[in-house]
Amino acid sequence: MLKASDHQVAGHEATDGKLGPVVDESGRFYKPLQSGERGLKEVAFYEALRSNKTFPDHIRSFFPIYYGTKHLEVSNGSGMHPHLILQDLNSTQVNPSIMDIKMGCRTWPPESSEDYVQKCLQKDRGSTSLPIGFRISGLEVFGSKESGLWKPDKKYIQSLSVDDVRLVLRKFVSSNASADLSVHPDCSLASVVYDGPNGILAQLLELKAWFEEQTLFHFYSCSILFMYEKGSGLEGQNCKAKVKLIDFAHVLDGCGVIDHNFLGGLCSLINFIKGIIVPPNA
Amino acid sequence: MLKASDHQVAGHEATDGKLGPVVDESGRFYKPLQSGERGLKEVAFYEALRSNKTFPDHIRSFFPIYYGTKHLEVSNGSGMHPHLILQDLNSTQVNPSIMDIKMGCRTWPPESSEDYVQKCLQKDRGSTSLPIGFRISGLEVFGSKESGLWKPDKKYIQSLSVDDVRLVLRKFVSSNASADLSVHPDCSLASVVYDGPNGILAQLLELKAWFEEQTLFHFYSCSILFMYEKGSGLEGQNCKAKVKLIDFAHVLDGCGVIDHNFLGGLCSLINFIKGIIVPPNA
Repeated sequence: MLKASDHQVAGHEATDGKLGPVVDESGRFYKPLQSGERGLKEVAFYEALRSNKTFPDHIRSFFPIYYGTKHLEVSNGSGMHPHLILQDLNSTQVNPSIMDIKMGCRTWPPESSEDYVQKCLQKDRGSTSLPIGFRISGLEVFGSKESGLWKPDKKYIQSLSVDDVRLVLRKFVSSNASADLSVHPDCSLASVVYDGPNGILAQLLELKAWFEEQTLFHFYSCSILFMYEKGSGLEGQNCKAKVKLIDFAHVLDGCGVIDHNFLGGLCSLINFIKGIIVPPNA
Repeated sequence: MLKASDHQVAGHEATDGKLGPVVDESGRFYKPLQSGERGLKEVAFYEALRSNKTFPDHIRSFFPIYYGTKHLEVSNGSGMHPHLILQDLNSTQVNPSIMDIKMGCRTWPPESSEDYVQKCLQKDRGSTSLPIGFRISGLEVFGSKESGLWKPDKKYIQSLSVDDVRLVLRKFVSSNASADLSVHPDCSLASVVYDGPNGILAQLLELKAWFEEQTLFHFYSCSILFMYEKGSGLEGQNCKAKVKLIDFAHVLDGCGVIDHNFLGGLCSLINFIKGIIVPPNA
């Protein structure tokens, strides 16, 4: 039994006959291959990751597990379509809060066509990618059984300013998150979600250490996912805060050079998170 | 007595009646203010740096000392021109080796005009700025009394590929540096110039730690200078390896965000230097 993922916060959704990711009950996530070179590049990346025996395990765990590819009948009536079979990152979560953050101030690889460069450049300049080296591309925050989910629409997400990003990163770890700008986010979960030995900051710092050295891959237009479960965090238990990397349709060979574009954005993101854990005037 | 600087490796030179930096015998360097906003921005940056009492001293020493501005009669016959009065970084050096490295994969600030963006973008894409986050904009390497100075021309510098940059960074610390590609650089000075507690790598790491935190300034199109004296290094003495930051005509207020563009390039440069100190197969 395949169904559209409940927790897709960015990208295409498999609804209204559109091609989108689906999940099964065994914890697998089926992502339709993008057309042309993009789909092939994403498969090639997962294959390279799987076959690279020297890849450090603590870094491998930042990536969804890859199980291969499969042709699936898709609901839009266009017949069979090739899919990546990946780990469903949210299969064991009941009420996850999720944020998708597209990394890098530049989302286009060096050898792109002129049209593609200008198209991406316009998006990067029109978003926070240029000033802060990343942009939020989607999120859902589970408040409580009463308040439910806050899942802003694409238009809201695309209009976020630098100050808005700072605010949304605070709302993401607040018990009173909502679109209401008059509500001051309480950041009640910052200490369990962002901070601590298993928190998001610690995981980002681990990634950073790797990006300072690794010259295997350059991750253009790739996203970092933040995920946690609010319920458990509120009760002071393990909130299972997780950082994952997804979307590898624009990954290039690093050719012996570090991915300074991703790393710069990652350092900036780390600085934003530190600013929430320890407010500037604390 | 003012004269053109002997050790100008990038930018305009005060020769043939052109406006360029001059030095005096007391160790001061007079840099003509660039026209319009650029010149004003550079003065504003040096004034801000001077008046900021919280600026850490160990970081302040990466910048040339600033003594104010002064109108000077210039040799091109156009009369008086305003100059920045700065420390002459090479005044105490006899045979310095110098490299000018323009930092960042993007040399244009976010709010630039469309024309300026496209002009810079073309240069960034046509150089190593895009792939590695920095580009060499000038250098001179003092070989020995016999071999003299290797100072490649602008055309050579502008055509450097990523592999060439790797090679030139090796030549810079070699006793046999020359344009001759068949000569394998011996890197005989890498351990004293790049490595060690006072070497260039240690200074770059200090800068990096600051850039991971500082949100005061964004340094677009700014350069890092590497400098040392070969003679003293060869004799195992202090080679006075120095890292300095110069060229602040495109510095912007950081607005509470780190300079991820400069930092990304800096991390990449650090990785190149580490690769010379400890070769990949060592």
